[in-house]
This record gives sequence, C-alpha cells and structure tokens, in this order.
Amino acid sequence: MSRAGIAIDPDRLMARIRKLGEIGALPGGGVCRLALTEEDRAGRDLLVGWMRELGLEVRIDAIGNIFGLRRGREEGPPVMTGSHIDTVRTGGLYDGALGVLAGLEIVETLDRAGIGTRHPLVIAAFTNEEGARFPPDMMGSLVHVGALALEDALATRGIDGETVGACLERIGYAGDAPVGRPEARAFVELHIEQGPVLEREGVTIGAVEGVQGISWQALSLRGRSAHAGATPMAMRRDAGLVAAEIAVFARRLAREIGGDQVATVGSLRLSPDLVNVVPERAELTVDLRHTDDLRLREAERRLSAFAAEAAAREGVEIAFRQLARFAPVAFDPAMVARVEATARRLGRSVRRMPSGAGHDAQIMARVCPTAMIFVPSVGGISHNVEEYTAPEDLAAGAEVLLELLLDLLEGEGA
Amino acid sequence: MSRAGIAIDPDRLMARIRKLGEIGALPGGGVCRLALTEEDRAGRDLLVGWMRELGLEVRIDAIGNIFGLRRGREEGPPVMTGSHIDTVRTGGLYDGALGVLAGLEIVETLDRAGIGTRHPLVIAAFTNEEGARFPPDMMGSLVHVGALALEDALATRGIDGETVGACLERIGYAGDAPVGRPEARAFVELHIEQGPVLEREGVTIGAVEGVQGISWQALSLRGRSAHAGATPMAMRRDAGLVAAEIAVFARRLAREIGGDQVATVGSLRLSPDLVNVVPERAELTVDLRHTDDLRLREAERRLSAFAAEAAAREGVEIAFRQLARFAPVAFDPAMVARVEATARRLGRSVRRMPSGAGHDAQIMARVCPTAMIFVPSVGGISHNVEEYTAPEDLAAGAEVLLELLLDLLEGEGA
Repeated sequence: MSRAGIAIDPDRLMARIRKLGEIGALPGGGVCRLALTEEDRAGRDLLVGWMRELGLEVRIDAIGNIFGLRRGREEGPPVMTGSHIDTVRTGGLYDGALGVLAGLEIVETLDRAGIGTRHPLVIAAFTNEEGARFPPDMMGSLVHVGALALEDALATRGIDGETVGACLERIGYAGDAPVGRPEARAFVELHIEQGPVLEREGVTIGAVEGVQGISWQALSLRGRSAHAGATPMAMRRDAGLVAAEIAVFARRLAREIGGDQVATVGSLRLSPDLVNVVPERAELTVDLRHTDDLRLREAERRLSAFAAEAAAREGVEIAFRQLARFAPVAFDPAMVARVEATARRLGRSVRRMPSGAGHDAQIMARVCPTAMIFVPSVGGISHNVEEYTAPEDLAAGAEVLLELLLDLLEGEGA
Repeated sequence: MSRAGIAIDPDRLMARIRKLGEIGALPGGGVCRLALTEEDRAGRDLLVGWMRELGLEVRIDAIGNIFGLRRGREEGPPVMTGSHIDTVRTGGLYDGALGVLAGLEIVETLDRAGIGTRHPLVIAAFTNEEGARFPPDMMGSLVHVGALALEDALATRGIDGETVGACLERIGYAGDAPVGRPEARAFVELHIEQGPVLEREGVTIGAVEGVQGISWQALSLRGRSAHAGATPMAMRRDAGLVAAEIAVFARRLAREIGGDQVATVGSLRLSPDLVNVVPERAELTVDLRHTDDLRLREAERRLSAFAAEAAAREGVEIAFRQLARFAPVAFDPAMVARVEATARRLGRSVRRMPSGAGHDAQIMARVCPTAMIFVPSVGGISHNVEEYTAPEDLAAGAEVLLELLLDLLEGEGA
C-alpha cells in the first residue's frame, strides 16, 4: 500500500502481460515478437488501444516510439516510465513488456483512485530495443535522445534485408510526431533482472546503479592443420589449443579482477573441426563487462596480451576485431538512492546491483535523471521461452515503481 | 646401387606415379579416387594393365584386393610388398600409390637385369585402405587376414548409401579368387610419412617400429545457458569453459607423458554459440595415441578423471563415448632392424619411428613378419592436395625396399 493509500492490482497487471504474450506466442511457450513485424504491429495496436481506453494522449514519433501522456496539474516536462514490447526470436513474456504494462497499471490505479499529479506522466514503449532484427539494439531510445540520426535508423537493413523505414510504413507506425519529444524530467524503467542474483540471494528488488560497460572482441587464429597421429606435439601449430587457452584465461581474469567483472567465451569454432586433424583455424569471441571503465580496460589489455603471447608460443597467427564497445553507464546516484529507500519503506528487501544487459534506461540516462528497478528472474533465465518471474515479484516491482513515480510526479526537482 | 648391382629407375617410378595421379585428378592439383568409384576402377585397370605388361600373374579376390605374382625358383609362400591406390576426397599423389608402384618398379628392375629370386614376389593393392567412402579403413587387408568377414565387408554401406558388394560388381572387381590367399612369408610396405619428423630432422628413411594405438573419445558437456552480462561468474555452469579446460589439459597430458604420446582436440562445438550467451552445451573429441598400450591407457584414465573433475567443479554434466580404440601394433623387431641396417648399408640416414597413421601393414603384421619404410612428407602434409615428397626421397625409399626385398626373396626365414 502506497503512502497515497492506493495499491496496484496484480491480477490486472498479469492479465495484460498474458494478453500481450498471446501475440506472437510460440507453440511450446514463450513469444516471438521481433521488431516491426506483423506480430509487433498487433502488439502495438493492443497497447495503443489500452492507452486510449485509459484516456492517455497517444503520440507516435517518426521512429515508431509510442508515448502515452496523462496530463498533470502543471504543463512542463513529464515524468516518464516504460520499456519496450519487441522480443528476441525465442523470448519470454516479461522482458520489456513488464515495464510498459506496469506503467499502464499505475495509470489505471491513479485513475480509479481519482488521483491527479502535479507533473504529467508518460508511458513509453521504445522501438526495437532488442536489436534482434535490426542493429543496433535500443534503436528507439537512441533516436529519441539524438544519439542516432533518424535517417540512419530508418535506412538500417534487418537480417531479412528490409529497412526499418519500410517496415514502419507497412505496419502503420511511421508516426508524424518529431523525434526527441517529450523531454522527460526523469525516467524510471521497471525490468526483470535477466540474471540469477536476486533469486539466489532471496532479495525482491534490485536498485540498479548502472549498466556494465561492454567489450566484445572476435579473435581469429590461424595455425597449421596436421595429422593428429603423425605430428609430434612439439611440431604443432594448433589454433584450437590457443583458443582453449584464451577461454580458460578469460575465466581466470574475471576471478582475479573480481567484483562485477564478467568474462565469457560464448562462441568458439574450429576448422576443419575433425577428430583426427590438428585445427588450422579457430574463431572465438570474448565478452568482457564491468561497471568500472578503468577495470574494463585493464581486462581488455590483459586478455589481449595473454592471447598474443599464447598465439606466439604456439606459432599461431592472431587477429583481433572489436565487435562492440560501450562504456559503463552510471545512473543518477540520487535516483538510485530513491529506489532503494522506496523499496525499504514498502518493506521490500533490496540490494544495489549493476545491470549486465543493455536497457533503454541507459540511453535515457544521457538526457535526464534515470533509475531502474529489477525484479527476480527465476533461474536467471531470459531471452529464452522459459523466462519467468513470480506474479508476486512483478507486483512488488510495480508497487515500488508506483511509489517512486508518485514522489517524482509531485516533486520540485527530478 | 644394390648389392646385386642393380638400381631402380627413379624417372620410371615417377612416370607411373604421375600417370596414376591423372586418374581422378582435381582441378587445382591432388587426386580424388575414392574406393570403388569409377575413378578407382580406372586406376585399377591401369595398375592391372601394368602388372600384365610386366608378366605378373594377376589375382583378384572377392573383396577386390589385387595381387600381382612374379614367380620364384621355388614354390611356396611369397614375399609381399604393396599398399593401396584409393585416396581420400582431397588426396595427394603419393599416399598408397608409392608403395604399389615402387613394387612394380622393382619387378621391372629385376626383369631388366634378368634376376630371378628363390621365393615368389607379390605386389599387392588392397581395397579401401582409406575408409573415406566405406568404413572401416584398411578393409581389404582386414578381410585378407580374416579379421573382417567377407559378407560383412560386402554388405557395408558407404556415405552415399551404396554397398561395397554392389560397387565391386559394377566396377568389375568382385574377383573370383578366395580371400586370404596368397599367404605371405613377409610383408613390407613403403609409404610416405604423413608427418613432419623426417623432414624436420633431415633424415631420409624411417624404420617404422609400429603403429600407434588410437583412442578416440567424444565428450558431451551440458551446463546451463545464461546471460553473459547478468550472470556473475560464481553462478555459471559454463559447458564451453569445461571443454576448453579439457583441451588445455590434453596438451599438458601429452607433455607430461612424453615420448610418442600425442593428444589432439580436433573438434569442439558450442551451443548456442553466441557471443553473449554462456554456452549450455559443448561437444568435443579427444584423440590420444601412443605406441605403448599401458601409456595409452594411462592417458585415457587421466584425461577422463580430469574431465569428470572439471565438469563437477563447474556443475556441468558430462558423458563420454568411445568412438574408436585400436591397440598399438609393434612390427617384428628383426624386420625393423633389417630396414634400419639396409638403409645404412645404402648410405641413407635413417631413424626408428612410430607411425601415427593406420596402414595395411599393421593388419598384415597379424599374419606374417612385417615392416614399413617411411620417406619424408614435405611440411608433414598428407590427406591434402598439397601432399608432396621429393623425387629423390621417393627413389631412396624404393632403393631400400628393393634391397630389403632382395634379402627376403633369397632368405631361409622371413
């Protein structure tokens, strides 16, 4: 129960999550609602219909971002909440949808209680957060904050060869509102954790301090293929061995740097990949993440040095290619503190934590004070049809969001 | 020049190797003469034609093995030499062909010098040594020694669905001679090394002491896929990491056991194999070989123990599957000593060494005293269109073979 004496309706929230999850539902469970497909159109139509039923003023901009406005007593910049409704190819019901639909639930709660607010409230659904069909991910929020030019975004071709612009036209979401508006006075995103930390620690609410910096590298190794029986060990130039050494080192590196450092070799391919041939080529990726850019750079440096040394030792050529590099994002400390304090006031267990995944909030943080609220993911599973968060945790997150928004909607500052 | 005052003709040997290599020649070099194909038929026809021109009595048995007999002063078991003329899909000119065509060259040399021998000499070309189209490899020699039933061999289906029996009929090499004859008094096979040792050490002749025992295992690892950013290191069950640890251990194991021990992880596949997902599954193969079966068993035991321990440490399930297991073969020590002594007598540098690859000789070793003579492979490359051995090394090998055969053809024992 919030200080205003009101509470969200968990069943109503779940009903909307389930209803949206029927669009693009996969036979065995889960959802496929790739950005700007017919399924995305149907999901958007459902969302916009709900917004209109709740009396929100719907604005669709030129990149297809959807904003539903609930007016306040004063004009001026709104407080914004939301997330996205596109999914990966084998996604779950909660990733993105929770943040948008919790926003609608809060609007409905305020409406039913007859509560007006000083500042306007906007519920946002950003276009193509996943990047699963069109790169880059977080496209809608990047265009919104001016970090990606609208023309470039519209001209982007997807994995099926179609452009963002053509798809937006086809599904009827090439809106006429200029991008970049409304300018929010603050942004809060409720999201599932997508990792196992909250569940393992028995904590309900994550107060997200920031988003990890990400470094993706592809390493190409070229040795010499050779007969696995006839080639003595000392005469080998085994590209597969060097790849394996790098993978083992990546784990050691994460352990030695410690803290939030993570390191993953997710892809590793050998050629010719035959049981009795010493591998001539190996291709592997290394994903390094840390909330502290200095530490992330240290990890990158040490990994590169080790890889070069291991390759040289084996007489294997090595080439590095940066696939992605995002600096860490730190959310506004005052906003993080408000999430934490709000959760405690509502009697919820809470811990500060980084986000390992990317979110629209990290883009919005460039233009306004921003916070994220995490709720537990069972088994840490996400981007998977088995993604699940218990209804009581979804409701707890929505309650914290409601309480925080009420503060922000009445406040002087952000 | 041999003790009999005769010498092989290197140009004639090379001419036959080149002529046979034209059959199934690949556009960019190399040869594709898979067992029992039209190309194999054409190669066999050429070989049988040469045998008949040289006055050999040609015998073709029910598995298609070709034996060309040069009679001796006495009846009785012949001395046999030879190898095979089938190739892998992207083979070279020398693997197999050298051993057969050097036999023909020796017959021609003896004929031209008017030299008769006490015992008969047989030049053999065994069916399907490579196993590249029909398993198992060394099929013709296995049937010859009675280790594989003729009916089973004939019923074997190849990668294209056809049976050995049907193909033998079609190409006209389902011979009427019973398998298992002639019974050789000794067998000698001249072959390219297929590894880099002789070239690197500047040695011309390898006196092969035996064939390494082979252990092939497939390891299946199952952990849990997880978000590469949102999953702390301590909460991972990374199947790819365990696979990499096993690959690194295999190298360490070979180094620690030392001697002839080799260990290769030639195939390693991850799933889902994505840059930002901790691998749920990994499949890898481990190829272990040693000339000493006790050492090979030790290697297998230590590898299995390490793999089980590494998997348990990471919370990953592991399953082992034996793909192949052949015990080492030791050639007759007296025969090995004769190869070595003969090479020295001819002024050739020589070293004892194991064979890392399988050969018909290791099958023949079950029924008669057997030896192999190796000549250098440039770059250790074989089963590859770039396979190459210098003409002078081919000739040196053929000279050692001639000299050794002359001894055996006159000798009391083997």
